[in-house]
Amino acid sequence: VTDLFWPGSERAGSLLSDRTLLGAMITVEAAWLGSLVEAGIAPTEAAHPLAGIVGDADLPELASGAEAGGNPVIGLVALLRDRLPGETGRWLHRGLTSQDVLDTALVLCLADTADRIAAEHRAQIAVLFDLAETHATTPMVGRTLTQHAVPITFGLKAAVWLTGILDATEALGHARARLPAQIGGAAGTLAALVELARLSGRPDPETTAQQIVAETAGRLGLPVRAPWHTVRSPLTALADALVGCTDAYGHLATDVATLSRPEIGELAEHNGGGSSTMPHKHNPALSVLIRRTALTAPGLAATAHLASASTVDERPDGAWHAEWAALRDLGRRAVVAASQASDLLTGLQVDTDAMAVNLDAAHGVTAEQASIAALAGAEPSATYLGLAGTVIEQTVARGRRLLSTGQEAW
Amino acid sequence: VTDLFWPGSERAGSLLSDRTLLGAMITVEAAWLGSLVEAGIAPTEAAHPLAGIVGDADLPELASGAEAGGNPVIGLVALLRDRLPGETGRWLHRGLTSQDVLDTALVLCLADTADRIAAEHRAQIAVLFDLAETHATTPMVGRTLTQHAVPITFGLKAAVWLTGILDATEALGHARARLPAQIGGAAGTLAALVELARLSGRPDPETTAQQIVAETAGRLGLPVRAPWHTVRSPLTALADALVGCTDAYGHLATDVATLSRPEIGELAEHNGGGSSTMPHKHNPALSVLIRRTALTAPGLAATAHLASASTVDERPDGAWHAEWAALRDLGRRAVVAASQASDLLTGLQVDTDAMAVNLDAAHGVTAEQASIAALAGAEPSATYLGLAGTVIEQTVARGRRLLSTGQEAW
Amino acid sequence: VTDLFWPGSERAGSLLSDRTLLGAMITVEAAWLGSLVEAGIAPTEAAHPLAGIVGDADLPELASGAEAGGNPVIGLVALLRDRLPGETGRWLHRGLTSQDVLDTALVLCLADTADRIAAEHRAQIAVLFDLAETHATTPMVGRTLTQHAVPITFGLKAAVWLTGILDATEALGHARARLPAQIGGAAGTLAALVELARLSGRPDPETTAQQIVAETAGRLGLPVRAPWHTVRSPLTALADALVGCTDAYGHLATDVATLSRPEIGELAEHNGGGSSTMPHKHNPALSVLIRRTALTAPGLAATAHLASASTVDERPDGAWHAEWAALRDLGRRAVVAASQASDLLTGLQVDTDAMAVNLDAAHGVTAEQASIAALAGAEPSATYLGLAGTVIEQTVARGRRLLSTGQEAW
Amino acid sequence: VTDLFWPGSERAGSLLSDRTLLGAMITVEAAWLGSLVEAGIAPTEAAHPLAGIVGDADLPELASGAEAGGNPVIGLVALLRDRLPGETGRWLHRGLTSQDVLDTALVLCLADTADRIAAEHRAQIAVLFDLAETHATTPMVGRTLTQHAVPITFGLKAAVWLTGILDATEALGHARARLPAQIGGAAGTLAALVELARLSGRPDPETTAQQIVAETAGRLGLPVRAPWHTVRSPLTALADALVGCTDAYGHLATDVATLSRPEIGELAEHNGGGSSTMPHKHNPALSVLIRRTALTAPGLAATAHLASASTVDERPDGAWHAEWAALRDLGRRAVVAASQASDLLTGLQVDTDAMAVNLDAAHGVTAEQASIAALAGAEPSATYLGLAGTVIEQTVARGRRLLSTGQEAW
Repeated sequence: VTDLFWPGSERAGSLLSDRTLLGAMITVEAAWLGSLVEAGIAPTEAAHPLAGIVGDADLPELASGAEAGGNPVIGLVALLRDRLPGETGRWLHRGLTSQDVLDTALVLCLADTADRIAAEHRAQIAVLFDLAETHATTPMVGRTLTQHAVPITFGLKAAVWLTGILDATEALGHARARLPAQIGGAAGTLAALVELARLSGRPDPETTAQQIVAETAGRLGLPVRAPWHTVRSPLTALADALVGCTDAYGHLATDVATLSRPEIGELAEHNGGGSSTMPHKHNPALSVLIRRTALTAPGLAATAHLASASTVDERPDGAWHAEWAALRDLGRRAVVAASQASDLLTGLQVDTDAMAVNLDAAHGVTAEQASIAALAGAEPSATYLGLAGTVIEQTVARGRRLLSTGQEAW
Repeated sequence: VTDLFWPGSERAGSLLSDRTLLGAMITVEAAWLGSLVEAGIAPTEAAHPLAGIVGDADLPELASGAEAGGNPVIGLVALLRDRLPGETGRWLHRGLTSQDVLDTALVLCLADTADRIAAEHRAQIAVLFDLAETHATTPMVGRTLTQHAVPITFGLKAAVWLTGILDATEALGHARARLPAQIGGAAGTLAALVELARLSGRPDPETTAQQIVAETAGRLGLPVRAPWHTVRSPLTALADALVGCTDAYGHLATDVATLSRPEIGELAEHNGGGSSTMPHKHNPALSVLIRRTALTAPGLAATAHLASASTVDERPDGAWHAEWAALRDLGRRAVVAASQASDLLTGLQVDTDAMAVNLDAAHGVTAEQASIAALAGAEPSATYLGLAGTVIEQTVARGRRLLSTGQEAW
Repeated sequence: VTDLFWPGSERAGSLLSDRTLLGAMITVEAAWLGSLVEAGIAPTEAAHPLAGIVGDADLPELASGAEAGGNPVIGLVALLRDRLPGETGRWLHRGLTSQDVLDTALVLCLADTADRIAAEHRAQIAVLFDLAETHATTPMVGRTLTQHAVPITFGLKAAVWLTGILDATEALGHARARLPAQIGGAAGTLAALVELARLSGRPDPETTAQQIVAETAGRLGLPVRAPWHTVRSPLTALADALVGCTDAYGHLATDVATLSRPEIGELAEHNGGGSSTMPHKHNPALSVLIRRTALTAPGLAATAHLASASTVDERPDGAWHAEWAALRDLGRRAVVAASQASDLLTGLQVDTDAMAVNLDAAHGVTAEQASIAALAGAEPSATYLGLAGTVIEQTVARGRRLLSTGQEAW
Repeated sequence: VTDLFWPGSERAGSLLSDRTLLGAMITVEAAWLGSLVEAGIAPTEAAHPLAGIVGDADLPELASGAEAGGNPVIGLVALLRDRLPGETGRWLHRGLTSQDVLDTALVLCLADTADRIAAEHRAQIAVLFDLAETHATTPMVGRTLTQHAVPITFGLKAAVWLTGILDATEALGHARARLPAQIGGAAGTLAALVELARLSGRPDPETTAQQIVAETAGRLGLPVRAPWHTVRSPLTALADALVGCTDAYGHLATDVATLSRPEIGELAEHNGGGSSTMPHKHNPALSVLIRRTALTAPGLAATAHLASASTVDERPDGAWHAEWAALRDLGRRAVVAASQASDLLTGLQVDTDAMAVNLDAAHGVTAEQASIAALAGAEPSATYLGLAGTVIEQTVARGRRLLSTGQEAW
């Protein structure tokens, strides 16, 4: 699947693609069926791995059929039942509702997406350690409100970028670890499951039901949570964390695009993009594409929140349906931008001479120092870099601590 | 191409698809090349229809190659040149910049999208004429802030829906008619084109250049406009108009979803959607999916505005790139929702008995009338429907006037 | 009323303030009462100008009382009735609903806001005429995707800014001229008014009712429109137009902020803003504050659309209430930014020497010209400014046509 | 300060008002000055509590003066210096930049806002415990996609609302505890402070500087963090958490507004809002106003993210300025909605008879149970409420655990 409207889309591969979502929905159905069989609620003959029954070739039918019921699960269940042995078909999906399957499948896809981004962050953090430490004493002019302010070092700038990535990493890890399975049944009571347990003679059908839920979640590697059909916090938290990521990349990319303006010339992308008509152009193409993402991501998370705020009844009438594409687009775009940011950092060209020249030419960057010296009644010091070195050290140390903990602890 | 994340997506067909955008880009290059040849700037041997040279099979290469330069035009031009006769290849794209081709191609796609929506509106307007007139005297309870207020007629409600569609139609027609070609060259000066005219000995190269621009726009059926690489009003106006459409559908769908609640039961969708687990369910699936669209569309237009507000220099560094997918998604989703709204209206089931029962049971709906009668010192009238009939007549008349004018006059 | 959180807020004066809204609500009630009396529906003794009865001192009570009914009209009517002569009090507000009064009052406030912005635009257009013509041949480097492209003139850049302002002016004029009065009564039927006309013995009470509506709208200087309690197109069109304005200012301000970076130095604000600690700073404070507005405005219009898309029943349950502050903030901020943009343009300092130096130092800006000359097999021309002069002339001519027409024709 | 455009605004009192922000800015300056004196950097004569020097009467001057420098700090420092003893004036603000003062003051205001919301949540949680437990076995019909599904209990619905509030509480506590002081100096290096320490002869000026930063943060009750002028994660995390709160209230309010429709009649607000014309109306005014907030909040957090994604250089050129009003409005509106939600819950009227009647009349709510019984080859059970009771118990238990921990542990 190509996307001419979103250059770089290939970087997200099959994450959150139709094919991947389909696979995840089948995985959810399989985990549930397996748990029913394992618990002895469904008969052994019903057991089936569900693999290879429905696949990519069925996507057009599933997609076009999704409108009738408002979601693709109904058609998928029908198609599976049609092709599975009778006993498996009879027990498939029993006790679940469409939203259980789609929510949990989406969660599986989002978890993979978050893991991919976390891997990019590890790569970025390593490069940023290097940039921060290598350029710990490389002076450049600090700029505020577009104008020259006081000297900084390029290492400090890298450390500030690093802080953004570390914040994003922590928030993403936090949200990812809390992405739960959704197992609630028709109206969040799991009534069908409890009824099945009761009618099959279980002494404590409610406990049995909870065990089956836990078993299913365990098979999927997801935590259990009370049915959340209308409480969408796990998804909005992930959406917010993804925007936190693109915020960090947007900051980085805007700095690079600005500092690679020819008149400034302090940074450059390794391979600038060409032009269809001007052979000399060396456009900061990665920065441009990252900035694009950063501009569009906040609106997608706002859509997820709006959906969350608009839930009603036991399962909502449109708000739920508004989430899927917003989360898909946000997730894929965040991955693309993460990957582009990794490349941007890896190939970043730092022109320390240009930094020195610009700092030298900067008018007034010693003004604050002079006023401080006057206040102290002393001569100004030889340098004026303050805690730049300390901030670098402390930020790198924070990064090392983060890397040494598992993601689940973030 | 399927979209499991957006049930109903098929309704938009190939509008604004990768394939359609590719075709439109080639159409733009062909119109330009044809105009250069016709003007005698390019030699006759360069003439070529460009048809069948690059096609669907090239989409993966074009898409993955789009990242390097930040857009898909550079790769397309390279591919075309590679496959075209030498003289055609030499003259292809000369004088244009990537943004000229992509902007104009996007405009062509959006124009088709707007035309498709206008056709849906004509169908909806006809149904709404019928509903408004058929139910001009069908009483029902008017509701405000969820509570019973005073009586209305269902015909009036249909007329109010109609007003929404008429407003949307006018605004869409206005914006669509103003979608211009983008022909500006590298930095909006058309310098290459003027230089070509000058070097080929034209006495008035600037006039020649303007004639070629006009010829190209004419071939594409689009108005001419001064280069608008950084003035995005034509696109934001269209985006706003598309949201105006989804606003109107959202209002309609929310009314239908509300009035088809079982306890109210005044309206129903013709074919309600089923459930994966509850055989009796008759979900208002079209209303639900339309509401989904209405929730997400405003954010997409906001993205287009944000891009417009963030332009800089002669061509922007990310803002431009943020527009494409936002406009694609907004356009396609608006078409899907328009088509769903047409179906919803066509199949709408009106239970006039339920309306009568609910009105009868409504507590206090005569309170205002009683207070008015007391003020006038007279007995209340037999009915209390005010100008409902007049509003219906006037709204239908407005609709008839609109339908009788061409879209270009809207 | 101050706003430390929005520097420059004072520029909007009392537009859309609580005090102004209160005055507008009273104006609406007065126009209605006057029309009832004039039509002979209300007795002559009920006539009253309503001036000076409720004022600023009542704002705290009105504001805190607004929550109970969800809007400030209920309390206002109660307060007026309490203080007015009995007959006036008895007839006040009869036939209207709260939303009629608040919508129409908001429309009056927004119309004044739009007029104020139009006045700023006239000032801006005059400055831009001057900049475009004065610098019609002032060469500077054109920049695309942050990098040097081909030469342009500063006059062309001014003409492009002008195009943005002209587009915004036309759209704002279009939307402002269509801002209607809202007169619908409890559920959009005007039943109370028709009943009053009927009970007072009018032969054709519906026609009488329409005449009273027309008279009221006429007194307010607003067009009549069928009740639009749930069809919010007039407000979203105005909101979109206001964002169109801030988009244009954002583009301008981003260009100025960029080109006033010390390393570029081509433009400067007349009075740059200072710093709390660095005495030498000359920050582009107006540009910064305009950019702030441009970042926040699209979200406010999206809120208005979201409200429009969420209407239900005969008057909505929250969507209506979400509009007021969004439109207030959008309107006031647009005025502030318009005024700042006028000052920015009036005081803009153009350093043509810096432009020449930067163009001279620009690497590769003749590359396209060389490639075109090679294509033509001729020597390059002396200049390479293409249609820059023509675009300037045509844009100024468009501006003059616009200024010479009345705003209502825009 | 009144706000006719936002009924209920008074509930937020002076939180995030101009007056409160002014006080917070002065508090920040005082903490800094006190720390400088305590560290012996500033002389003892400079010590001053700063109280009562600048106050409400100065707001107009401060507000109108804020535009020149782009923020209100510059004017505040000038005014303070003008009125303070010379030595205090000389040392005031030394080493800080405007953004340090405004960011930290905003953080103080936001922390108070979060604490106020947390208090409302404690009240809401208590009511929800009661509703969930009291109605643990009160049957009602579960609804999905607006249609009747299977039975639930009202206690379960209350437990689901509770889950939303608990999620919001945790996220808000997490973000609030991480709101840091901002102390970075002109470009994030604290160069002036280090220079002051060095010139005053400190052996290890960098350590001294860090101690002064820690002392200042300690006086303000805020954690220390590396300068975050361009890494806005602490603020976006808080904004996201605030939207998480309004999401939860929006869900609750939409349920109440829906279930208080006359045809359903299962819930009612204690004091419904009246109408300006229909004496019988009992509008769900709190629900309506909460829904309003929920519709507008996501866009405000998106603005904060957009600002975060658009930072550049060492301090940004507009993105920073876009945050203030967005956070102010989001914070105040969240408080208003929190307080309204508390009232809504406290006064909620539950009509268990109506619930029983509606459930009884619900067509098809036993369909799933019948199909499950058929699958199991047994007679259906007497009830079909599944884990409703278990979910209630577990959710209440989660709530009790949360209440028993301090907010800082959330």
